[in-house]
Amino acid sequence: MQILTKYKVALIQNAIFETKQKILEGVAAQIRDCVQKECKVIFLGEFFNTVFETNHLKKNAEDFSDKNNRETYDLMQQLSEDLQIMIIGGLPEVADGKLFNAALAFNDGKLVGQYRKCHLFDVDIPGGITHFESNTFGQGNNYCIFDSQYGRYGLGICYDIRFPVFSQVMRDQGCQVLSFPSAFNQTTGPLHWELLNRARALDNQVFVASTQAARYYSDDPDYYQTWGHSIITDPMGRVLATCGSDPAVLIQEINLSLVDQIRKNIPTSIQKRTDLYQVSKGGK
Amino acid sequence: MQILTKYKVALIQNAIFETKQKILEGVAAQIRDCVQKECKVIFLGEFFNTVFETNHLKKNAEDFSDKNNRETYDLMQQLSEDLQIMIIGGLPEVADGKLFNAALAFNDGKLVGQYRKCHLFDVDIPGGITHFESNTFGQGNNYCIFDSQYGRYGLGICYDIRFPVFSQVMRDQGCQVLSFPSAFNQTTGPLHWELLNRARALDNQVFVASTQAARYYSDDPDYYQTWGHSIITDPMGRVLATCGSDPAVLIQEINLSLVDQIRKNIPTSIQKRTDLYQVSKGGK
Repeated sequence: MQILTKYKVALIQNAIFETKQKILEGVAAQIRDCVQKECKVIFLGEFFNTVFETNHLKKNAEDFSDKNNRETYDLMQQLSEDLQIMIIGGLPEVADGKLFNAALAFNDGKLVGQYRKCHLFDVDIPGGITHFESNTFGQGNNYCIFDSQYGRYGLGICYDIRFPVFSQVMRDQGCQVLSFPSAFNQTTGPLHWELLNRARALDNQVFVASTQAARYYSDDPDYYQTWGHSIITDPMGRVLATCGSDPAVLIQEINLSLVDQIRKNIPTSIQKRTDLYQVSKGGK
Repeated sequence: MQILTKYKVALIQNAIFETKQKILEGVAAQIRDCVQKECKVIFLGEFFNTVFETNHLKKNAEDFSDKNNRETYDLMQQLSEDLQIMIIGGLPEVADGKLFNAALAFNDGKLVGQYRKCHLFDVDIPGGITHFESNTFGQGNNYCIFDSQYGRYGLGICYDIRFPVFSQVMRDQGCQVLSFPSAFNQTTGPLHWELLNRARALDNQVFVASTQAARYYSDDPDYYQTWGHSIITDPMGRVLATCGSDPAVLIQEINLSLVDQIRKNIPTSIQKRTDLYQVSKGGK
């Protein structure tokens, strides 16, 4: 496959509305606009098609095998085909009666990546955030790594970014770009979001492009308040672009040749002391 | 062993002078001063007893088995015994005619930790820094993990901090505090030093206390210009104290109970997907 070295990407931190239909209309318009601006890869957030609240998540979950219940899936596929671009984004999935926190990647109309979150977000920070994702969602059991004319990509979702070895395995498998569609919150966001994106980028000398949907303000404590702050980081750990919690679009040119350059300059990947520690990969 | 939960530590970013004697006089006075201020653990930098330049490094290297050539070793031991404190710091070692980048830890006069840098700093950043440590130094082959009344500590030196799994192994072995005596430079320091300290602290939910000696200004390109910016970070990845490139002392109280608290709040250590990746430890 011929690899395009230099191209523009967009991180679309889309506005959230009460209905999926209104959200998707907005996202579709934004994607078209980004393609007008020559973007080839579109990164969307975790649960970008729904308010982040249990009832909405359930209502907006899609069964990808059911042509009558996969509106978001179909939209991503169709736009990817019509506009000849790659689109990556996260949404709730329902399969065999179970919910999953999923992400999809479509390239030129083809489904190239399908992921279910492997590390579920179960945390309890008194006075901060308490959230037990595993009460609602089943977990994924496999990596999602795929090739495209834009390089080799690896996907995780949100909390996955806290597990350094998970990213390292994807890098060992040859990934040049990692993407973590996410929804950090107003407690862990300010403390950890930028840090973790920069750390995974530098540790693995990859681009990391991580989008969150925009914050949907609500006084109802059942409505999870996302941090936003979508961010793209280069293989040297430098933040290329970021934003606040409100709706925003980041358009950024990336140059994949920087991956090889940084790996050559600071050759941590070949300097690992495999006599002192080894990482073995399971799953698919 | 009874563990002291709350105690003060000092990171001494000592001034560098042409002679080892003058450096050690300064450090000894600073340690005594920190103990006056109730510090129980002292963190010193990598090569804190010498100008960072090859001839100085060779001249100031010590053979720890030779009572006539271990002035720094003896001073650390003696102060640790006299003042009933723990002292951790790095210095060049010579053994069997080979040089090593070493660190020592003395507690109440006893040698409790002895380390040789495992990942040697061989990098080539055009227009930035080119340095091939392995031309001069032999590499270490073991971890350095030890217990004290201040908790379980793990040591690395400088470039070791770039290897996430190395730190994770130490954390898996029960470390609550990691220390990386270091000497980042004026190229990688601004980009990566704080990021890596915060990342290793957060990834492993440990305190990370990393001292560098102060910058020794010289126009001679053979004199390595250290970044300084000694830093102590808590298990949530928050910077507790840091400084600039010039001589400084950071005195900071730490509360070890925060380690358990953060590990309970965000239980990443027990949420690792060992079916998807596993880390195995070699070495001692």
